[in-house]
Amino acid sequence: MALEFEILKTSGKSRLGKLHTKHGVVNTPAFMPVGTCGTVKAMMPESVAQTGAEILLGNTYHLMLRPGADLVEKMGGLHKFMNWDKPILTDSGGFQVMSLSALRKITEEGVTFKSHVDGKKFFLSPEESMKIQHKLDSDITMAFDECTPYPCTYKRCQDSMRMSMRWAERSKKAFVDREGYGIFGIQQGNVFKDLREESALALKKIGFDGYAIGGLAIGEGQEKMFEVLDYAPDMLPKDKPRYLMGVGRPDDIVGAVLRGVDMFDCVMPTRSGRTSQAFTKYGTINIRNARHREDPRPLEEGCDCPLCTHYTRAYIHHLQKCNEVLAVMLLTWHNVRYYERLMQGLRKALSEDKLQDYVAEFYANQQKGDIPAL
Amino acid sequence: MALEFEILKTSGKSRLGKLHTKHGVVNTPAFMPVGTCGTVKAMMPESVAQTGAEILLGNTYHLMLRPGADLVEKMGGLHKFMNWDKPILTDSGGFQVMSLSALRKITEEGVTFKSHVDGKKFFLSPEESMKIQHKLDSDITMAFDECTPYPCTYKRCQDSMRMSMRWAERSKKAFVDREGYGIFGIQQGNVFKDLREESALALKKIGFDGYAIGGLAIGEGQEKMFEVLDYAPDMLPKDKPRYLMGVGRPDDIVGAVLRGVDMFDCVMPTRSGRTSQAFTKYGTINIRNARHREDPRPLEEGCDCPLCTHYTRAYIHHLQKCNEVLAVMLLTWHNVRYYERLMQGLRKALSEDKLQDYVAEFYANQQKGDIPAL
Repeated sequence: MALEFEILKTSGKSRLGKLHTKHGVVNTPAFMPVGTCGTVKAMMPESVAQTGAEILLGNTYHLMLRPGADLVEKMGGLHKFMNWDKPILTDSGGFQVMSLSALRKITEEGVTFKSHVDGKKFFLSPEESMKIQHKLDSDITMAFDECTPYPCTYKRCQDSMRMSMRWAERSKKAFVDREGYGIFGIQQGNVFKDLREESALALKKIGFDGYAIGGLAIGEGQEKMFEVLDYAPDMLPKDKPRYLMGVGRPDDIVGAVLRGVDMFDCVMPTRSGRTSQAFTKYGTINIRNARHREDPRPLEEGCDCPLCTHYTRAYIHHLQKCNEVLAVMLLTWHNVRYYERLMQGLRKALSEDKLQDYVAEFYANQQKGDIPAL
Repeated sequence: MALEFEILKTSGKSRLGKLHTKHGVVNTPAFMPVGTCGTVKAMMPESVAQTGAEILLGNTYHLMLRPGADLVEKMGGLHKFMNWDKPILTDSGGFQVMSLSALRKITEEGVTFKSHVDGKKFFLSPEESMKIQHKLDSDITMAFDECTPYPCTYKRCQDSMRMSMRWAERSKKAFVDREGYGIFGIQQGNVFKDLREESALALKKIGFDGYAIGGLAIGEGQEKMFEVLDYAPDMLPKDKPRYLMGVGRPDDIVGAVLRGVDMFDCVMPTRSGRTSQAFTKYGTINIRNARHREDPRPLEEGCDCPLCTHYTRAYIHHLQKCNEVLAVMLLTWHNVRYYERLMQGLRKALSEDKLQDYVAEFYANQQKGDIPAL
């Protein structure tokens, strides 16, 4: 086995685990900040590590366009290039090809598309994606797949999922197995239970180091997503990590952990840092709001990030009004720290058999909302 | 005396000194990074301190507009507001009123102007500027003055300088003297020696804790500036710090130190960080240049900043191409560190009686230019 996964404890469907990779251990449930272009936007990698993040996600699509996988390989791989010595998971590029690129042409062989940056033509296939992720030196490689939109007809989802499963097989075949490196398959099937089942069976037959649940968080809403998560994780092997791709808000993550998911990634904490939104245990706060203008209190009482330790809401509000980069830097740091604190809290609760209490408190706090204005 | 200034050593006209302020000691010659709106753009204050900076400059004009001096005072002063516990010097707002605001009306009483942010009307006078700088809790307050453009007729420079000297007297009178806090007067007179002399005499008569040389680096070029600096510092008291406002490029600073200047501020290192330009001992480098695309070498061999320690030119080039915030963060850090290393080098050379050697090496290296492309 290329990647070792230990399950230390369970509570209901939730699992406390340890994933061993070439570049270190990832404690699960884990949240992966997104480092799209070889940087977690507006953060030094040292700061990302300080938040408690143990693994990052890199985007194959973005990195193949700029600076190109060959250059990253020449520079010693993505870890060295971006100064991050902990594990990295890379997506396959499939999702971004569908969502960002222009003039796509999809065939059984793969996808031809034009770069959203300069219109240059590229080709991605299972084999190409594996080659690129290998050059990037990803600890965890994702199989190349197609992700259907929501809503989507049953027939289209079925066809797409079946092609993705054939691509999964080609991905596995093209993946170069090495100790400490692994490849995850991606379950598709949209919101159709029988397609999810068929996809899971196909993936298990191929055999992967971990299993992702793909094709969710694409506009179906939390209720529908949870309906799928009520059964989809159970279809995947118990002894392997389960990764819900592109999810999500804090309450999405808590709900998914309760349903047996181990890994997450999302641009939400970093993107929100660039739009003045902060995540706190009492829900979200938009620091641009005038109510914070003269507020001498920290953003979130008890948070140990630099923003909450050293600054007032008034200061961050001021930085935002002046479009200062430091606002983005501090809010991003806070948000990533918030996500990692949430994951640490979930893991601690799991290890102490207090998950139900932790989750109940989480929801109660989220419902309280932000402290009243002064 | 409100501010104590020790001169530890001299070499020609150059001086090695220590300026004692409420918030700590500033070793001179000193460079002050600019924190216009209560933040050194794109840097955490901890990082600014790590570069070796011992004092920051804050802008009265920007801070009076946003967030307003009353709010900063309410938040415990500028140090606490922006999480910087070392000394702060604030300018008087005079220069920015002239260069940034609209619809100025200047009278003997002061200046009425409209904010460049929202068009709101403000009034600044010596008394108002002192009041604002007091609220900001500046260690070093600057007298309120008018800065003439370049070129400028003798008559206009004379009139303006004389009004600035009357304003200097009103500034001194309005300044609240406290232990560890001080006020600097500003010599004006543009490039006219007799006006500089008249200005210096007027300032000395009033008596200040330090003396700035204002009205330079406004387009006259280095040669003309050095011509003025060949005599202007000598007109100011020997036992007080001399501060050349808004200067400059590394070789401007070295030339000015040789001419007896002790303090500097400039947006150059931070602004350049936002336009891809890096200062190095071999001159400036624009990291956007295609020659750096595949260059695995550090930006500047021997520099101990995070950019040069952990990253390749290829990586920074990549970040720039992708407009990543981290590029700005790292380049700004490097540039400020470069400036502070330069000042540390000058101080060390002064303390070891090796200033001539240091300066000769500085110029030789600057002339070499960047290392050849690979």
